[in-house]
Amino acid sequence: MIIDCHGHYTTAPAAHTGWRASQLAAFRAGGRAPAYPAISDDEIRESIEQNQLRLLRERGADMTIFSPRASAMAHHEGDERVSQEWARACNDLIARVTGLFPETFMGVCQLPQSPGAGLAGSVAELERCVTELGFVGCNLNPDPSGGWWTSPPLTDRYWYPVFEKMTELDVPAMIHVSSSCNPVFHATGAHYINADTTAFMQLIQGDLFADFPDLRLVIPHGGGAVPYHWGRYRGLADMLGKPPLSEHVMKNVFFDTCVYHQPGIDLLVEVIDTGSILFGSEMVGAVRGIDPETGHHFDDTKRYVDAAALPEAGRAKIYSGNARRVYPRLDKALRERGL
Amino acid sequence: MIIDCHGHYTTAPAAHTGWRASQLAAFRAGGRAPAYPAISDDEIRESIEQNQLRLLRERGADMTIFSPRASAMAHHEGDERVSQEWARACNDLIARVTGLFPETFMGVCQLPQSPGAGLAGSVAELERCVTELGFVGCNLNPDPSGGWWTSPPLTDRYWYPVFEKMTELDVPAMIHVSSSCNPVFHATGAHYINADTTAFMQLIQGDLFADFPDLRLVIPHGGGAVPYHWGRYRGLADMLGKPPLSEHVMKNVFFDTCVYHQPGIDLLVEVIDTGSILFGSEMVGAVRGIDPETGHHFDDTKRYVDAAALPEAGRAKIYSGNARRVYPRLDKALRERGL
Repeated sequence: MIIDCHGHYTTAPAAHTGWRASQLAAFRAGGRAPAYPAISDDEIRESIEQNQLRLLRERGADMTIFSPRASAMAHHEGDERVSQEWARACNDLIARVTGLFPETFMGVCQLPQSPGAGLAGSVAELERCVTELGFVGCNLNPDPSGGWWTSPPLTDRYWYPVFEKMTELDVPAMIHVSSSCNPVFHATGAHYINADTTAFMQLIQGDLFADFPDLRLVIPHGGGAVPYHWGRYRGLADMLGKPPLSEHVMKNVFFDTCVYHQPGIDLLVEVIDTGSILFGSEMVGAVRGIDPETGHHFDDTKRYVDAAALPEAGRAKIYSGNARRVYPRLDKALRERGL
Repeated sequence: MIIDCHGHYTTAPAAHTGWRASQLAAFRAGGRAPAYPAISDDEIRESIEQNQLRLLRERGADMTIFSPRASAMAHHEGDERVSQEWARACNDLIARVTGLFPETFMGVCQLPQSPGAGLAGSVAELERCVTELGFVGCNLNPDPSGGWWTSPPLTDRYWYPVFEKMTELDVPAMIHVSSSCNPVFHATGAHYINADTTAFMQLIQGDLFADFPDLRLVIPHGGGAVPYHWGRYRGLADMLGKPPLSEHVMKNVFFDTCVYHQPGIDLLVEVIDTGSILFGSEMVGAVRGIDPETGHHFDDTKRYVDAAALPEAGRAKIYSGNARRVYPRLDKALRERGL
């Protein structure tokens, strides 16, 4: 079984995206958002079958851990109420996808974060999504300001309410920023990768997993710059008087395989223990084209993992074993189906 | 000949560092900085001989392109006048090092940037350092706010005065941030690497080298996350309708080898043309410890380059040929010495 831990609903029906535009326009005008539009099951089916489901089948994966479009979370837009409405709309739409395609998609929620706001609303939405919608995790944005980085580090007690609820519900978070409203940062080319790198370094500096020994965080996009600079991070941990990374952070931190060329995946599996890597493609996502050097889609990361020099047991962990361990609610659902 | 393109005077005499503290204290108190202290040649000699020069000899390099301590540039401190005084003091100290060790050190200057200020002072200091002190390049900070990222992208016309002067003087810049006053970003573990990644993506988005075909920019720390995510960047350039990276940016952009483990260097030389890589160690610098896995210093990057699967012609380019091409004033000085 092959589980893709990192898929986004980037192909949501136009009515959904249109409602978001109306919601933000209403906010700017000082009014309330219009009623959320009717979207038929057929529209949702079509948007999935022609995109994510088609690609999953073409590429040979079985299941995707599926969340709302990351760049559209845009927690920097509007205020906390706007983020709450939008998160709820996005998560309910994901729940409709998982309801229509229960064999293939498991839900992960967007949180109603807002710059400067507390996290009570995020805790409540996480609980709703897990207990009522059957979701198996959440996406946590370390920079809801969208590129201005005004929130404290992830090791700050500000974030603890979410980590406490995650621990209680036994669900992981993917650390995932959204779009950037700071013109220096291209969203998928700089902000995403920087956030991954930044989060990992915060976890080295702090001691978050002493307080939350069971917390599990997935750092996407192959861990940002971290595996490439693994020596730097091992050396910095040493300079900061921290235990080796294997003990200090890597019992709780996982990287996905959203690295879009063979040498990158080869490095990832060379330096990072296979127990810490989850298969992911980020599709349909950041990079949609075909690599002229290979003739295949850049984000067809299964090809790179298949070609990497790995023992089969390691590849099996990357493809499903680790995901089932990091997302125990997913594992439970699969076991109930005899899988 | 082996030229290290990335060395900082991190071991400057205490009187120099102490003056900076006094300068900032005076600024905060609304007064003027005290007179710059007397520092003897012997103090400078000792600070170099026991550190950079000793390590160069132990590790087998011949020359370092040498600049003031990057983390101490701290352009976010004080105001433009404070940055001007400090840049001048730092650059004059580098000139004393290059005067005392002309065979081994070539100067690169810090610029008197300040958040929100124009670049006329930086242009003037660059000209002074190159024409009066014999420097061969500069360090350009894309984020003088120190982690708040309030300056425009490097492709914005704001930066053009520096690029024009660099072109006129035929000197390159290393794109190098300083310390971070934003608590989310560890300086050497996040801010440095993020800035490298960010700058590269800005260059993909823009078309800077159409306006400055001869401009040369060195992106340090192995290009941040870029080589690890080379497929992502090739794909994003394609999505943005840009020419292949080899044409669009890689005629003008160079990466150093400040990547502190063998797999990282192996990836760098696999995906990046050897004509675009300059040997660098960043020493004495970001990571000073010994790697328990190898028994050698993390930042002894020559070991990794020596061990990388490279034809000798490629290694020679990385060790000196590219540096002589990117820093033509260095090349001229070496040729005048018959080297």
